[in-house]
Amino acid sequence: MKKVTVGVVGFGTVGGGVVDILQKNRDLIKERSGVNIELKYVASKNFGGTGVEILYAKKTFDYNDIINDKEVDIVVELVGGIDVPFDIITKAINAGKNVVTANKALLAEKGGEIFSLAEQKGVLIGFEASVAGGIPIIRVLRDSLIGDRVDQILGILNGTTNFILTKMFEENMDFSQALKRAQELGFAEADPSFDIDGIDTAHKISILSRLAFDTSVDFNSIYIEGIRNISLEDVKYAYELGFVLKLLGIAKMDDDGLIEVRVHPALVSKFNQLAFVREEYNAVLVESKNLGISMYYGKGAGRYPTAVSVVSDIVEIALSISDSKVVRKVREIRKREVKSIGDIYSRYYLRFSVIDRPGVLSAISKILGDNGISIAAVIQKEVSPHEFVPLVMVTHHAKEKDLVKALSEINNLKVVKGQGVMIRIVDDI
Amino acid sequence: MKKVTVGVVGFGTVGGGVVDILQKNRDLIKERSGVNIELKYVASKNFGGTGVEILYAKKTFDYNDIINDKEVDIVVELVGGIDVPFDIITKAINAGKNVVTANKALLAEKGGEIFSLAEQKGVLIGFEASVAGGIPIIRVLRDSLIGDRVDQILGILNGTTNFILTKMFEENMDFSQALKRAQELGFAEADPSFDIDGIDTAHKISILSRLAFDTSVDFNSIYIEGIRNISLEDVKYAYELGFVLKLLGIAKMDDDGLIEVRVHPALVSKFNQLAFVREEYNAVLVESKNLGISMYYGKGAGRYPTAVSVVSDIVEIALSISDSKVVRKVREIRKREVKSIGDIYSRYYLRFSVIDRPGVLSAISKILGDNGISIAAVIQKEVSPHEFVPLVMVTHHAKEKDLVKALSEINNLKVVKGQGVMIRIVDDI
Repeated sequence: MKKVTVGVVGFGTVGGGVVDILQKNRDLIKERSGVNIELKYVASKNFGGTGVEILYAKKTFDYNDIINDKEVDIVVELVGGIDVPFDIITKAINAGKNVVTANKALLAEKGGEIFSLAEQKGVLIGFEASVAGGIPIIRVLRDSLIGDRVDQILGILNGTTNFILTKMFEENMDFSQALKRAQELGFAEADPSFDIDGIDTAHKISILSRLAFDTSVDFNSIYIEGIRNISLEDVKYAYELGFVLKLLGIAKMDDDGLIEVRVHPALVSKFNQLAFVREEYNAVLVESKNLGISMYYGKGAGRYPTAVSVVSDIVEIALSISDSKVVRKVREIRKREVKSIGDIYSRYYLRFSVIDRPGVLSAISKILGDNGISIAAVIQKEVSPHEFVPLVMVTHHAKEKDLVKALSEINNLKVVKGQGVMIRIVDDI
Repeated sequence: MKKVTVGVVGFGTVGGGVVDILQKNRDLIKERSGVNIELKYVASKNFGGTGVEILYAKKTFDYNDIINDKEVDIVVELVGGIDVPFDIITKAINAGKNVVTANKALLAEKGGEIFSLAEQKGVLIGFEASVAGGIPIIRVLRDSLIGDRVDQILGILNGTTNFILTKMFEENMDFSQALKRAQELGFAEADPSFDIDGIDTAHKISILSRLAFDTSVDFNSIYIEGIRNISLEDVKYAYELGFVLKLLGIAKMDDDGLIEVRVHPALVSKFNQLAFVREEYNAVLVESKNLGISMYYGKGAGRYPTAVSVVSDIVEIALSISDSKVVRKVREIRKREVKSIGDIYSRYYLRFSVIDRPGVLSAISKILGDNGISIAAVIQKEVSPHEFVPLVMVTHHAKEKDLVKALSEINNLKVVKGQGVMIRIVDDI
């Protein structure tokens, strides 16, 4: 089996998550990809407090140890900031190493330099985690839409501001209250200006524009307006008029190839998919010529969502440099038994046609209870012109076998007409 | 530049779309991927009525012409059915060709055989278009989540049934009326049983289960129940109880590795993301250990959405077999100018604090009108304890420059207090 050697620089929130996944899912990744990914180094100024134990890798305080090791194939930069990461990445590229980074600020401001240096040195740059953390929007634009032309991208790309706007809208907080709540819950930094003034969103939409429109975007040409001055009053009036307020990164191209790239508070129709993106979630709505409308939704930040994307980049590059046929094979790693439907647990919606007579509800409840099924909600309504009235119930979780048995007993009651209706209720995830 | 040779078998809805995209976006794909994809053959029993002209490729009635041509690298199977596609695909694999297919029925029922034959012969199978048309869910499961473990997948995977259920719910149609409407609009076949009885959804969820859980799923072990017997009454009662009814493909794995794979009508909370998936749209909600919840939404069928996915597979395989470093390079193909914010067109939300006095609305409207801006909606409310009252307006589309000029004139009116608020409204896409 091919071996690919990795060094991670930065052992904070995301770095810790990447190390944890590479260690915990080492075998899974090996089985799925057919490549052995060896984490050889972790470089950091500080190895404490991250809650992840480094099992096999060498610890170093100097990232040059990684760059100078000929065995290292991929350098993973998770430091944050601009100058130090730029130094790490350019040194790594010059040393012929492939690079994975989650650094949107760096790519937005110096992406042109980095990508052309990489092209020149024949190395690869993975940056899926740089935009919208766990949402695979880079691969969508780069790979899935390779035969399509993007007309526009509307992105909720910053979890902090979306959390604040959700609190304002749903809990009638004003901006400063909502910001305080976000800070208490760890969704906003002590100095939140990067997020709330729209800079972070601008970094991300500039990276998406580059991929969508095959062009570099001068970061200074992006119009940026944040949510600092949004008043609760406007959020409420806007809703009355049919709109929900979001901070959007917007990128558009018209048929003449002229583009718009901008970040500002924006009203979207309350029926638009973006209106339903709440709390700290991110979403990217893409309109393209052939695919039409598509949307990608998930967590835009956080240790593990971001780390999953970093790991996917590491594997992608690892496959690319170790195997001439890179497209993943479909492997059957396990034999797994599919449970029979009788063995599932679910909540259930039930409807019976019953004679409107005292004692009917108790007879039905008794059968359910005897079979270990408890009732969460009931609707019984008078329906004047019929002898039979509908009795609607929602159960708590039950085993399907037990429910089916109860149902057949209920169907046999003289007061019940025909067969009861049963529809499974899916738990919210 | 590397050249990769492609033969397409099947020239119906999807085949026509693939040929069209490969022809129209030939240069774009070449620039983006660095590979020249040559469409050498189109095989079909019938070349009429598809509305796409074949420009360069050879037409043939016999797909064996493609399989027997040593130059062909990739065979694209878009025929439909089981037996003929199985013959095409196995012959192609045995001839050492890579295969792209959109055929979910075939992969669900004979995927095991096909994938293991491909592994044995060292060729690649692309099947992004087999599940949820334009939604790149295969890549998400295969690549993006390679370092993660999927707990569950909930999918609205069939546009026909989702369209029918939307009509029932939103327009109070019963099942047969809604089915008729779907047939009139071309969203349902004359014989709709494959869709409405859940078979199509079952094919798709079985393919997703394979990828998510690294296992093959015996198609006969999947519990399948369609929507034929759903009554409007239950749709309505369920909504009263807080649920929306959808046909779901469900795949779950518990921590012991036991799996559930099933298809049935299911109630989801009316606040669940899936509840907002309307009409013929598809969506896949994924819950995984590290990424948490993510959702992928788009068109699940149709010529161009499906063809985009087929083309993405063709390019992926083409890169894979022609270049040892496959991961896409970030190319700057064009220089593009970013429009200045003053040059954009938008609708606008405006709010002014005005003295509650006759003539104020007309003064403001006049300034807007003089600058070419027309008003779509107004809210003016009495707010008793204040001298100043809010005046809220929504404009029709206007050039931002003109709006900014009008705003500064309005801000100078004596009857207006402070600066007006302006928020851009994003058009629904």
